[in-house]
Amino acid sequence: MGAVKGVILDIVPEAAIVDISHAVQAFDVLDGAIAISQTYSYFPTGTVHMVVVDPGVGTTRRPIIASSDGYHFVAPDNGVLSMVYAKEERIHVRHVTSDHYFHQPVSNTFHARDVFAPVAAYLAKLVDSRKFGDEIEDYVKFAAPKPKPTGENKLRAVVLKVDRFGNLITNITPEDAPALFSGKAAFKVIVGSKEITEIRSAYAEGGPGEVFGILGSMGYLEIVANRAPAAQLTGAGKGAEVTVQLGGATAAGKGA
Amino acid sequence: MGAVKGVILDIVPEAAIVDISHAVQAFDVLDGAIAISQTYSYFPTGTVHMVVVDPGVGTTRRPIIASSDGYHFVAPDNGVLSMVYAKEERIHVRHVTSDHYFHQPVSNTFHARDVFAPVAAYLAKLVDSRKFGDEIEDYVKFAAPKPKPTGENKLRAVVLKVDRFGNLITNITPEDAPALFSGKAAFKVIVGSKEITEIRSAYAEGGPGEVFGILGSMGYLEIVANRAPAAQLTGAGKGAEVTVQLGGATAAGKGA
Amino acid sequence: MGAVKGVILDIVPEAAIVDISHAVQAFDVLDGAIAISQTYSYFPTGTVHMVVVDPGVGTTRRPIIASSDGYHFVAPDNGVLSMVYAKEERIHVRHVTSDHYFHQPVSNTFHARDVFAPVAAYLAKLVDSRKFGDEIEDYVKFAAPKPKPTGENKLRAVVLKVDRFGNLITNITPEDAPALFSGKAAFKVIVGSKEITEIRSAYAEGGPGEVFGILGSMGYLEIVANRAPAAQLTGAGKGAEVTVQLGGATAAGKGA
Repeated sequence: MGAVKGVILDIVPEAAIVDISHAVQAFDVLDGAIAISQTYSYFPTGTVHMVVVDPGVGTTRRPIIASSDGYHFVAPDNGVLSMVYAKEERIHVRHVTSDHYFHQPVSNTFHARDVFAPVAAYLAKLVDSRKFGDEIEDYVKFAAPKPKPTGENKLRAVVLKVDRFGNLITNITPEDAPALFSGKAAFKVIVGSKEITEIRSAYAEGGPGEVFGILGSMGYLEIVANRAPAAQLTGAGKGAEVTVQLGGATAAGKGA
Repeated sequence: MGAVKGVILDIVPEAAIVDISHAVQAFDVLDGAIAISQTYSYFPTGTVHMVVVDPGVGTTRRPIIASSDGYHFVAPDNGVLSMVYAKEERIHVRHVTSDHYFHQPVSNTFHARDVFAPVAAYLAKLVDSRKFGDEIEDYVKFAAPKPKPTGENKLRAVVLKVDRFGNLITNITPEDAPALFSGKAAFKVIVGSKEITEIRSAYAEGGPGEVFGILGSMGYLEIVANRAPAAQLTGAGKGAEVTVQLGGATAAGKGA
Repeated sequence: MGAVKGVILDIVPEAAIVDISHAVQAFDVLDGAIAISQTYSYFPTGTVHMVVVDPGVGTTRRPIIASSDGYHFVAPDNGVLSMVYAKEERIHVRHVTSDHYFHQPVSNTFHARDVFAPVAAYLAKLVDSRKFGDEIEDYVKFAAPKPKPTGENKLRAVVLKVDRFGNLITNITPEDAPALFSGKAAFKVIVGSKEITEIRSAYAEGGPGEVFGILGSMGYLEIVANRAPAAQLTGAGKGAEVTVQLGGATAAGKGA
């Protein structure tokens, strides 16, 4: 990514360039969508976010600028901004066509350097976003995978990602299963080889080798262990199925 | 770590944020303690060092600011600053309790973003450290593991860490075993499957496949090879036992 | 690398420090030579590039400054700048001997921190490069490995590196085999377990599991797949042999 930063600094030498994540999985648009949606709002108003998870580079997928009240996002139109669109009420999306802003010659394989970096740099230099192309409405937007009911008090969910501590981040939010987080209902969450029956409030509250749940900083149920990688302890990874069963014989009566 | 940097830049847009290490082992307070103690003093006076190796996040372990003559350190009170305390003669440690400096709401699982980042940012903005909380004396401090004598001219030591080149960094300093570094005494150092009998002054001085010792830039004996990972050649990793035998049959008489 | 950045900021607090690559293989001078040669020219004029792939640290290999019209390069004299020399018509190389610019004491094992970082910092502070030492002509320069003809219309080439997407970057340029990139000639490229007969213009143009060629942004033939690691699909890695056969029975007559 050195060349990308070089292109930006050549246009705006005073730019503060911050890497949001080196850990986005190659080719994985959903992983990129999660990463940007979890971080962008912590940055100062006026920040330009460049999001390049771009398996379609060199095809006709469009380069876009999405502008909310506080931020610009420069990205390929492949859905990587879907979770940003879901959070931001007012957003304007433009198809970037003004190729005089690009770094010429534009290669077929490295648009991060030749297209997205210079566009982001000129936005950071306060060039008006309207100069880059026309507004569009038909931009690509996918729904984040939601847990599915599969029977009475039963949900089928999925591991969205594994973080660098080996925590399994599922797609289950308190909205999807309020009883799970109520502290009053019995439940079972099955992931890989483990059955989880406890939700705690901190990683450090688990016993050695114990796998349990936590409501993570991303707003999702995470399957974790204390100072150990839950991914290894459960044998489950990204994309693994997560089954939630609310209530049951051992419940205190208010389950689900 | 993107959100952490966003929080800092939102408070001090002109901050220069530098990653000291991405390579600290997850959950490993000793590894973090070594990393910060080896690097902090190279930074300009006035630098604020944020050190977040924090397996106890969400528990009652205290957030602290440790201030020496030249630097502030923001960290959890779990001993990660132990080797800084050992190097700095004058240090004042405060328990951070002024939660109006925190990023609200404070999550249970991401204090790097919600507690440590904003505190570090306000210190960088020159807010007086006394405003964050009272000074404490009972902060957590552990002794770095030292080699232990296990017989006449014998020491038992340990591999503290493996660096990215596969070098094994032991906990043996010239103080622990002066004869080892004197160039005049015979010795054997046993690590994994290898017996080392040579200390050289540069990595490049070893023959192909040869494993030997070097006094590394951290001040510790390192077990290394020339352009090859000693970890693989010895079969030893972090935490492996290192046995030092000074003197012996082949010694020139001055051994140990 | 934290200490390296600390040393630089201590000398030039306003320096913008940009990591070009964390991914250069340890000990691999050719990999470093490729990385710097592909990126340096995108940076603003006046940038100081510090290139430390330095398996000979602590030996008598010389620290050098190479200065072109637009840039300074600070590096060990081990050939890591060879591909920069090949691109830059006018370059002056100096042997850095003025050790009062070094960070004292200079360790035997960490010249990035003690030698290269302070020299780069003083250059960034506009200290005249002539003050660091005398110009030399006998600096180390190796030729990049070129494909070799091995028969009529046959070439033997090599995989220079595998990038983080699993693409295999070969050493074949359009100059080496114009017919390969003409779109008019039949050919076979054999890498690992696969035979490639198609060159496409974008990663996304391949079918699922298909391995094909692309003229990459580095100017080399890359062996790739659509959203999948070609390295795994071919079983080939860095240093693997690549055989090119131009023309053949299925050619349209103009082959090679």
